Amino acid sequence: MAESLDLHLEFDRGAGFPGRSLENALRESIRTGRLPAGSRLPGSRSLAADLGLARGTVVQAYAQLVAEGWLVTAPGSGTRVANLPQEPPGSRREPRPATTPGPVIELRPGIPDLGSFPRTAWAGSVRRALATASRGTLDYPDPAGLPALRAAVAGYLVRTRGVRCDPDAVVITAGFTQGLALLARALHRRGVRAVATENPGLTHHRMLLRAAGLTVTPLTVGAGGADPDEAAGQAALLTPAHQHPTGVVLAPQHRYRFIAWARRHDAFVIEDDYDGEFRYDQRPVGAMQALAPERIVYAGSTSKSLAPGVRLGWFVVPESLRRDLAVTLLESGAAVSAIEQLAMADLLTHGDYDRHIRRMRLIYQRRRAELADRLAEVTTTPLSGIAAGMHALLPLASAAQEHRLIQAGRRQGLHLIGLYSSDYWHDPADERQAAALVLGYAAPPSHAWQAALTGLGELVQQSGR
Amino acid sequence: MAESLDLHLEFDRGAGFPGRSLENALRESIRTGRLPAGSRLPGSRSLAADLGLARGTVVQAYAQLVAEGWLVTAPGSGTRVANLPQEPPGSRREPRPATTPGPVIELRPGIPDLGSFPRTAWAGSVRRALATASRGTLDYPDPAGLPALRAAVAGYLVRTRGVRCDPDAVVITAGFTQGLALLARALHRRGVRAVATENPGLTHHRMLLRAAGLTVTPLTVGAGGADPDEAAGQAALLTPAHQHPTGVVLAPQHRYRFIAWARRHDAFVIEDDYDGEFRYDQRPVGAMQALAPERIVYAGSTSKSLAPGVRLGWFVVPESLRRDLAVTLLESGAAVSAIEQLAMADLLTHGDYDRHIRRMRLIYQRRRAELADRLAEVTTTPLSGIAAGMHALLPLASAAQEHRLIQAGRRQGLHLIGLYSSDYWHDPADERQAAALVLGYAAPPSHAWQAALTGLGELVQQSGR
Repeated sequence: MAESLDLHLEFDRGAGFPGRSLENALRESIRTGRLPAGSRLPGSRSLAADLGLARGTVVQAYAQLVAEGWLVTAPGSGTRVANLPQEPPGSRREPRPATTPGPVIELRPGIPDLGSFPRTAWAGSVRRALATASRGTLDYPDPAGLPALRAAVAGYLVRTRGVRCDPDAVVITAGFTQGLALLARALHRRGVRAVATENPGLTHHRMLLRAAGLTVTPLTVGAGGADPDEAAGQAALLTPAHQHPTGVVLAPQHRYRFIAWARRHDAFVIEDDYDGEFRYDQRPVGAMQALAPERIVYAGSTSKSLAPGVRLGWFVVPESLRRDLAVTLLESGAAVSAIEQLAMADLLTHGDYDRHIRRMRLIYQRRRAELADRLAEVTTTPLSGIAAGMHALLPLASAAQEHRLIQAGRRQGLHLIGLYSSDYWHDPADERQAAALVLGYAAPPSHAWQAALTGLGELVQQSGR
Repeated sequence: MAESLDLHLEFDRGAGFPGRSLENALRESIRTGRLPAGSRLPGSRSLAADLGLARGTVVQAYAQLVAEGWLVTAPGSGTRVANLPQEPPGSRREPRPATTPGPVIELRPGIPDLGSFPRTAWAGSVRRALATASRGTLDYPDPAGLPALRAAVAGYLVRTRGVRCDPDAVVITAGFTQGLALLARALHRRGVRAVATENPGLTHHRMLLRAAGLTVTPLTVGAGGADPDEAAGQAALLTPAHQHPTGVVLAPQHRYRFIAWARRHDAFVIEDDYDGEFRYDQRPVGAMQALAPERIVYAGSTSKSLAPGVRLGWFVVPESLRRDLAVTLLESGAAVSAIEQLAMADLLTHGDYDRHIRRMRLIYQRRRAELADRLAEVTTTPLSGIAAGMHALLPLASAAQEHRLIQAGRRQGLHLIGLYSSDYWHDPADERQAAALVLGYAAPPSHAWQAALTGLGELVQQSGR
């Protein structure tokens, strides 16, 4: 039959499975249109003879392709190519834009030194966790988290942050971001329609809240943190221990007033304790949650203490919210790897987590001091924000100066973040907004830190302060 | 001052940090109401003298508690206990119901042998992944997954399941469940309002679709799988390789008709390939996705191949859906641990994943044969469903017989799942629904397998077939 010659199969005879090679060749021919829909294939006997294969091999290959839908057979009409939908033209991805020679040293706020991630300790925790895990822990996990990790986290938070909780109150999430998205939907389910957030604050968090159907209103941040008089709606998202990005602490009287507001309006405070482990001038102020555990959702994560790539967070949830959050968890299908949870529980209970934080605290503390010293050589403006976390603000005279510094930084290989220009504000036209560099001093690798200091010092000096 | 005597502080003098012990004791007294709101604390000098502490220690403790909001100070009125919201009564959790002496051996469908999870290989992959990961991979990951894992998964799916994809098409999720929930929201964002699902099929999946705002309509499953004539809405969720729970394969002509329907209605097919790696009578039928990659979302996971606790899945997404899914991912904050992703990529590229699947395929194949042999001794009804996956159906005469068997199983320590009684059906009043045991032969631990066989055989024999 002539058809067998027309196939032009790219058929690899050297492979160990001639039947599979034949299948692949036929599939490829159908895909590319070389074998159009409806075309009749040679009989198995003649194709086998042409290709030097056993007839059974060809029969099996045809049967497989019929089962997969590439071919059709009908009594009396032999085997034909099925009438497949055509691949849409232009379905290849577009080429990515060429990368420009980008900034070399990042001074992003909110990023720890990724090079210091405790790789050996983590691998050890995974190994120990897997060596001792019961088979049941490898089944579908409770969406709220494994009991072992919830207990370890509760113990850690009580001990280090003064949080008031038992393991039942702890919900394990894939980082703060996912937890906030889930919490926002749980609040919406409970009837909450508006959330107040700090201004300035993170745009990303406002996006997550809005995506859950919530309206977002601003809370002006002053020297004592967010202004409770502006609290509206039925929830407030705050960073009490170290406001992001301004670096101030929520004043005690503001804490009371937020709590009083929450009690009056059946509202909740979400305490984003994103870098609460890191304070350098004194012991950290304890979590606000302890003042009103029935009104405050406490949230922490490993994104600053270990690395964002770990994607592990914890929410301490008031009893009255747990049911709505549990339903939201179920409906979202959200869950965190049991192995990762067991490893984290091991890291906490073995003390490796505390050791790592103590070590990083010293490193960041020294970096902050060196940053302050370096800038003091070139400007009389001191850093603002408490000595804590992973960033400090260098106040600037104007948005224009901020813009100039960021541009000059880019040319010198320094990636700088500006308070004015980085979308921290609800209303970019607001007269009150300040200009500053938000300097993330934890982000650069150790080997680049001195270069970052030198470069930043020169930039600020040249900018004429 | 008399007040200092009234404090009755449970104060641990032996601890290394008397200031912290004092703080804790004061916090506890305020929490429990022993120090009511408004009560005035002794002056720091007198309390220090009473407790035998340095005055500075007491001053610092007071300052800390003021900062945390437990205490307030006002000029001229000394230090007082703040007016805190009271803890709501009865906030302790209720005692859990006592567990009954539950079933000993589970024959749940869709659960692999958790005892065979490749613990050593996984720990090795984590170690290798961490030893070689760049620091950038520990930063906030792309919500769609790390390039290394997306590439490894694409290669695996092309090779073993005939899926047509490149790494850009792959989205990594925290298991199939989370991926389906995200996909459902992405479809809703695209205008999809109704999804057809197999009947019988998993209730859990219907719940996830409904939670995303979609209406769910049934597709009757016959000998050739779901009926394409009942396709409605703009999406269909199918298990083409091995229908869950009936165990049939979606017939080639049904595949075409679903694809034709999808093309006519700008609709999508979701191919849930939950156990596609496991077929024992012949090579697995290739993925339906390859017939129409622009209309079919292919989905797989490690829940059956490794363990559900791993919580890793992959979705191969048509180009026209990727943007909506990317936005949904961002808004959900969903992400999977970078370490887990790197470990999985290592497991795939080192061949450990294939080795594990080959090993489990032999084990499950043997178990299925032993199950069939054992039941053939006591009933003339053969198992139904193809020799694949992790479950088989034993058809029964009536719902009453199914109920009796499940009850008798419970008494003998066998946890059995019934097709009629387990909520697989949209309409429990439907006359056509069949009774059967859905026997998950992979779930029991190795040491319990013979007991499961024996027990099940006795049950079926006693039930009079």
